[in-house]
Amino acid sequence: MIHPTALVSPKAVIGDNVKIGAYSIIHDKVEIGANSEIDSYCEIGYPTPLAEGKLLKIGSSAKIRSHSVFYEGSEFGERLITGHRVTVRELTKAGKNLQIGTQSDIQGTCEFGDYVRIHSNVFVGQLAKLGNFVWLFPYVVLTNDPHPPSNTLVGVTIEDFAAVAAKSVILPGIRLGEGCLIAAGSVVNRNVQAHRIYAGVPAKDLGETSKIKLSSDPSKSAYPWTQHFHRGYPSEIVEQWRKK
Amino acid sequence: MIHPTALVSPKAVIGDNVKIGAYSIIHDKVEIGANSEIDSYCEIGYPTPLAEGKLLKIGSSAKIRSHSVFYEGSEFGERLITGHRVTVRELTKAGKNLQIGTQSDIQGTCEFGDYVRIHSNVFVGQLAKLGNFVWLFPYVVLTNDPHPPSNTLVGVTIEDFAAVAAKSVILPGIRLGEGCLIAAGSVVNRNVQAHRIYAGVPAKDLGETSKIKLSSDPSKSAYPWTQHFHRGYPSEIVEQWRKK
Amino acid sequence: MIHPTALVSPKAVIGDNVKIGAYSIIHDKVEIGANSEIDSYCEIGYPTPLAEGKLLKIGSSAKIRSHSVFYEGSEFGERLITGHRVTVRELTKAGKNLQIGTQSDIQGTCEFGDYVRIHSNVFVGQLAKLGNFVWLFPYVVLTNDPHPPSNTLVGVTIEDFAAVAAKSVILPGIRLGEGCLIAAGSVVNRNVQAHRIYAGVPAKDLGETSKIKLSSDPSKSAYPWTQHFHRGYPSEIVEQWRKK
Repeated sequence: MIHPTALVSPKAVIGDNVKIGAYSIIHDKVEIGANSEIDSYCEIGYPTPLAEGKLLKIGSSAKIRSHSVFYEGSEFGERLITGHRVTVRELTKAGKNLQIGTQSDIQGTCEFGDYVRIHSNVFVGQLAKLGNFVWLFPYVVLTNDPHPPSNTLVGVTIEDFAAVAAKSVILPGIRLGEGCLIAAGSVVNRNVQAHRIYAGVPAKDLGETSKIKLSSDPSKSAYPWTQHFHRGYPSEIVEQWRKK
Repeated sequence: MIHPTALVSPKAVIGDNVKIGAYSIIHDKVEIGANSEIDSYCEIGYPTPLAEGKLLKIGSSAKIRSHSVFYEGSEFGERLITGHRVTVRELTKAGKNLQIGTQSDIQGTCEFGDYVRIHSNVFVGQLAKLGNFVWLFPYVVLTNDPHPPSNTLVGVTIEDFAAVAAKSVILPGIRLGEGCLIAAGSVVNRNVQAHRIYAGVPAKDLGETSKIKLSSDPSKSAYPWTQHFHRGYPSEIVEQWRKK
Repeated sequence: MIHPTALVSPKAVIGDNVKIGAYSIIHDKVEIGANSEIDSYCEIGYPTPLAEGKLLKIGSSAKIRSHSVFYEGSEFGERLITGHRVTVRELTKAGKNLQIGTQSDIQGTCEFGDYVRIHSNVFVGQLAKLGNFVWLFPYVVLTNDPHPPSNTLVGVTIEDFAAVAAKSVILPGIRLGEGCLIAAGSVVNRNVQAHRIYAGVPAKDLGETSKIKLSSDPSKSAYPWTQHFHRGYPSEIVEQWRKK
């Protein structure tokens, strides 16, 4: 299951039934859970003194696509799935079922809950904290520098079920409330309350998310999205959402 | 012409005089036309069940630069040219002379006419339909999700000769008319008529494209661009444009 | 120090104590200074006729991270540091201590002074000229096409100590004055005077940078940033800043 051209450190701890693709490199301080799959041209456990000697721990049943780079010192729960050319720096912790899209760049010292979905080319600046079931759509940028360049960075906080649409920028230290929606192309420079829609540059409050109707059935609200979007979630979670 | 370190499936159909660079991988379900060149570190014909068993077909005289990934199930006419680290997903169809810039990400189930020019870091969401001679400049994003996350996606449509300048976002289901111009950094949330300029967040109609003058000769209009920009087009096409 | 899987042209001039990582390719027209380190999967000296036969010259003590591509014909002073998957095209010249973040794309025929800091996913269009100590934050785009597509491009000019925050777009031919600050998500379509703040789409003048206060000590200005931000600069430079 390990391609003969892969360069795997004998110090790395590789679980049962792990596949490692052609030309990939697994460095020393790495633990990869059972049934995981690492594509080709990946560099897993990239060394950095910033990891303070900590291991990179990837949970079971991960799928990491080609040309990705993961640094030492981060931890991921089971079923991590990535696109191609993903970068994840050191000291980040994520729950289970994290998805990271092609070319997204997670800058390190971040926290993610369970079932976070990050699309392509998203930039997550250091110190970001995301809850569970958060969505970041393509080219979203979470900043952290209050007056660039600064000595002290302040991360963005995003609560459960919030969705940030394509190309939005969230300014340093901003908190996005549970279930809120940031419209595409927004620049968000103030905190957003739960279940509100914000849009524009700078983003303004456009009301409750519940006023957005389903394109397939305008008699129903599109939010909370958990009432109609269930793809990729286990049935026990969808059941909980239905009972709300 | 196939580098000894390249891993080429015996099932792949490789045309005459095809070059394949060092450390590249060609999977099973691939047809590459004659005189094509695949750089190093590419993964061509990346397997996916979403391709429904269809081949990746790359026409003759293609040039695919390093670290690019093409999935199974897409088709390209002759003279495809890409930058580095391009991603193209499954079930996309393109005419001839498509150019895709470095790090651009084509999400699959898209359609492109002939001579489409896509610059660096462009994101083309699923279901986009582009005509002939369309231009997408760096960091343009074509979205498709009407109320993210949605079960049903709606693609963007762009008609012939339209130009979308750097960093613009086009919202789901929007149609950009023939020869229109979207200014840099716009967020387009309504349909754009032929030969109109739109700019801003959200983008507003600024008039006819013909009112923009050539920087090198302010007595002439810069649009339609086909009257002065001919680099890379065959003379018979330029002749047709001149007769209009 | 050269990994056995690296493919290094015998024509390349490799300085003392240079490390070259697994699976990297060093082409013919390359000079790499002493004590430099090239990671894995890099392609250094990518051939192009546009380089007019000129060498790629990388100064001493460089660190180029994995999956990066440098074309022939560019020159870098000592201590170049890059992130992963950086692209630099031909005929660009840079001073010493240039930093280029992950996935940034330098399009060629650009000029950089000393100590320029470019973060992740920045796009520097052809003909850009940057002074010393300039900062470009993530996803900044420097354009160059006055009425796309154009035959004649006009680059952006950025003077010493200017800082362009995340996701801003600078339009063709614009000049950003010394020490100015462009706020995140701006579209800049006019020249910016020294030490002014610009923000918005299109960006407007918000006053002197000195009115922004340090987050850690609101009795002090955050600009000029040289008065408080010293990380990564040699002490003799910091001393000069202190004397101003």
